[in-house]
Amino acid sequence: MHAEIIAIGSELLDPYHQDTNSLFLTEKLNLLGVPVAFKDVVGDNADHLTNVARTAIWRSDIVIFMGGLGPTEDDLTRECVAKALGRDLKRDPKLIAELYAWFAGRRRKMAPNNEQQADVIDGAEVLRNERGTAPGQYLETEIDGKLKFIMLLPGPPHEIKPIFEQQCFPRLQAKLPSYFMAMRRLRVAMMGESDCDSRIAPIYKNFEGVETTILAGAGEINLHLRARAESQEIAEQRVEELAGKLEDELGDNVYSRGDSLEQIVGYHLQLRNLTLAVAESCTGGMLGGRITAVSGSSRYFLGGAIVYSNEFKTLFANVPPMMIAQHGAVSPEVAKALAEGIRDETRASIGLSVTGVAGPTGGSEEKPVGLVYFGLAHEHGVEVVERRFPGDRDRIRLFATQHALDMLRRHLMSF
Amino acid sequence: MHAEIIAIGSELLDPYHQDTNSLFLTEKLNLLGVPVAFKDVVGDNADHLTNVARTAIWRSDIVIFMGGLGPTEDDLTRECVAKALGRDLKRDPKLIAELYAWFAGRRRKMAPNNEQQADVIDGAEVLRNERGTAPGQYLETEIDGKLKFIMLLPGPPHEIKPIFEQQCFPRLQAKLPSYFMAMRRLRVAMMGESDCDSRIAPIYKNFEGVETTILAGAGEINLHLRARAESQEIAEQRVEELAGKLEDELGDNVYSRGDSLEQIVGYHLQLRNLTLAVAESCTGGMLGGRITAVSGSSRYFLGGAIVYSNEFKTLFANVPPMMIAQHGAVSPEVAKALAEGIRDETRASIGLSVTGVAGPTGGSEEKPVGLVYFGLAHEHGVEVVERRFPGDRDRIRLFATQHALDMLRRHLMSF
Repeated sequence: MHAEIIAIGSELLDPYHQDTNSLFLTEKLNLLGVPVAFKDVVGDNADHLTNVARTAIWRSDIVIFMGGLGPTEDDLTRECVAKALGRDLKRDPKLIAELYAWFAGRRRKMAPNNEQQADVIDGAEVLRNERGTAPGQYLETEIDGKLKFIMLLPGPPHEIKPIFEQQCFPRLQAKLPSYFMAMRRLRVAMMGESDCDSRIAPIYKNFEGVETTILAGAGEINLHLRARAESQEIAEQRVEELAGKLEDELGDNVYSRGDSLEQIVGYHLQLRNLTLAVAESCTGGMLGGRITAVSGSSRYFLGGAIVYSNEFKTLFANVPPMMIAQHGAVSPEVAKALAEGIRDETRASIGLSVTGVAGPTGGSEEKPVGLVYFGLAHEHGVEVVERRFPGDRDRIRLFATQHALDMLRRHLMSF
Repeated sequence: MHAEIIAIGSELLDPYHQDTNSLFLTEKLNLLGVPVAFKDVVGDNADHLTNVARTAIWRSDIVIFMGGLGPTEDDLTRECVAKALGRDLKRDPKLIAELYAWFAGRRRKMAPNNEQQADVIDGAEVLRNERGTAPGQYLETEIDGKLKFIMLLPGPPHEIKPIFEQQCFPRLQAKLPSYFMAMRRLRVAMMGESDCDSRIAPIYKNFEGVETTILAGAGEINLHLRARAESQEIAEQRVEELAGKLEDELGDNVYSRGDSLEQIVGYHLQLRNLTLAVAESCTGGMLGGRITAVSGSSRYFLGGAIVYSNEFKTLFANVPPMMIAQHGAVSPEVAKALAEGIRDETRASIGLSVTGVAGPTGGSEEKPVGLVYFGLAHEHGVEVVERRFPGDRDRIRLFATQHALDMLRRHLMSF
C-alpha cells in the first residue's frame, strides 16, 4: 500500500513557488504506516489534471489532491477527479446555504461563482473547512477489487493541516491495519557530516527495524530515527535503544532531542543562575538575534555590543586601541579582550565574543576568509578558540553563531 | 511545447527533504520559452521510475530526470529511462578511464560499482560533470513524429546547475524557435499585500503581454514581471513600461529592482557619507545581523548595542532608569532616548532604535504582543514611530527589522 500526493496550481509550476504541504502530509501518512510513492505537481489545465488523476487512482491506494477547490474558473479539481473516477458532481444545497451564511457572517456579498464550491463528487463525504470557504471531500471506493482512499483538500497550509489532522487522519486510521511507529530526533552541533556518519554508520546500519535519516547544515546535524513495530511500546523501545547507542557514541556532541541550541544554552544558564553578555564583530548581532529568538531569554541574556568598528571594540568592551593595531581586530588577543571587556563592563556572569573574517573580501594569506576567533570569559578565567569555516559569507557567519553557542554549551556542561 | 521535471530518490519522499532544483530549471526553461507542465517525484524503485519515465516521454516534449545517476544499486535512472525509451545501455570505455583518473587524482581507489556510471543510453551524448563523478546524458529523439529532448542530470544542486547552464541550455537554445523574454523584479517594503494588489491590479491586469507574480512575506512584497515578445528589445520595452507604471503608482514603496533592503540602505548611507549605530531591544541583534549581511558594510555601519535588559539601556545608551520605570521599556519615550543615546554615545551620524513586545508572553492590554516602537535620531532631530505587527515571535521580530530598515531608507531619501 502506498500514497500519492498531487499539488494543483499553475503557480506551483513557476520559478518562485513550491509545494510544502506534502512534507506535512508525508509525516502523517508515515505515522499510519503508509509510504508516499509519488508526488506530482500539475497546473490548472483540465486535460493534464484529469490525466494525472487517472494515473494516480490506478497506481496508488491513497490519493490526496491539494488545491484547485476555490470559486474561480481555474479551480478544476472537483470536475477532473470526478471525470477520472467516472462519477457525477452534485451540487449540495446544504453547502450552498452554508457558503452564503459564511459570507453573510463576514458582512460580504457572495459572488455566484462561489456556488461551484458546493459541487460534491457522487459518494464523497464533505470535509468542513473552518478556515476558508472551500470544503474538502473524502471518498472510499473499490477499483479493480482494491480499496482506494481519495481526498480533495484545499491548498493553503493553514486550511489543509487541520482538515487532514482532524477529519482525514482518523478516517484512514479506522480503516488501515494498526500500525505503530516511534520517532526520535538527535541534534548534533559542530561535527562534520562525514565524521559523524563514519562514527555512527556501523551502529545504525546493523540495527534492524529503525530507519535513520541524516540532515546536515552549517555546524548542525539532525538524526531522524523512525521505528515501526507490532505495538507502540516495542516501537518506542526499539527507537530508544538505537537513540541511546548513538548518544553513547557521539557523547556530548549531541545537544538535544529536539530543542534548539539556543534553548539548550538558555536552560543551562537559567539552571545555574548565570547571566550572559555578548560582543559581536563579524556576526554583527546574529548571535544575539539567535539567543533572543527564545521567549523568556531576558531571564539570562542581558544583551551586549555589536563591535563592528574598531572604535566600538574600545568604546563598549575596553579593548586597547594599541592591541588592535598590533594584532589586528581578528586575533586571539582581541577575542580574549572582547570577552573579558564585555563581561567587566556589564557585570554579566559570562562574556562571549566573536571576531573573524566573514568575507568575501578582507581576507589575507595570514588571516584568510573563514578565520574566526571566539572568546569566553567567566569567573574562573577566559578561553579562546580559533576556527576556520568553509563557505560564503552567510554560511561562515552562521557557523560562527553556531560555534559560539556550542562553546558556551560545552562550558556550561563542564561544571 | 512543454517540459516535465522528474526528481528521483526515495529520500525526496520522506518528510524532511524537498526538491529545489526544479525552481532553477523552471526559470531557465521559461527563458527558452518553455513552460513546465508537470513535476514529479519518484523513489528509487525500478517499476515506479520506468512507469513515470514512459508517461513523461509520451506526454512532454522536454523531459529532465534529476538524480539516481550515482554508483549504487539504488541508482536506477539510466536503466529505467533506457527501458522506457526501448534503447540499450552501452558502457563507454572512455568514461570508465575518466572515472579511474578522477579517483586517482584524488588519491582514492575506485570501487568497481562506480563503473555503472559509464553506462550511456544508445544515441545519447555524455554531459561532463566537473563537480562529481556522475556524468549527465542528453538525447534528442523523434517519437510519434514529435521531437523529444531528454536529459539525465545528477541531483546535487552544485552539480546540476553548471551542467544545465553550460551544456543543456545552449543545446536546447540551438534547436528551439527563437524566444525572447525579459524580466523585472520590483521589491516593495512595508505595504500590506491586499493594499498593494488593490492599487496595482487595475494596471497589470489591463497590461497585455506581461505576466505578473506577487510574492509576499513579512513587510516585503516581490513583484515579478515577465514579458515575451518577437524580439528582446520589444520584450524589454514591454516589461519596462509596466515596471515604470507600477513604480509610478507605488512611489517610494518600491525600494529596489533586486538589491536587498539592507543593501539599499547601505548605498544611501555611503553616498551621503553617513555612519549608523543601532540600539536593539526586542530584535536582540537581528537588525545588526541584517545590516552586516552586506559585504563592505563596515564603511557605514559602526555597530551598536543589544539593550535587552533595562540596565543595558542605561549602560549603553544612557536612558534614565526613571524614564524606564515611568513609561516602561516599550514606550515612545524609551525608543526616542535609545536612538538619541546610542547616537550621542557613539558619535554616529544616525542612531536607530527598536523596542517592542515580541511575545508570546509579556503582552498586556495596554501594550499588546506585536507593539513595537522605533526611534531614528539624526542631526536634525529625532523621529519616533509606533507599529503593531501580526504573527508569532519570529514574524514580529522580522517585521521589526524590516520596518527599522525601511524607516531609515525613507529618511535617507528625504534629503
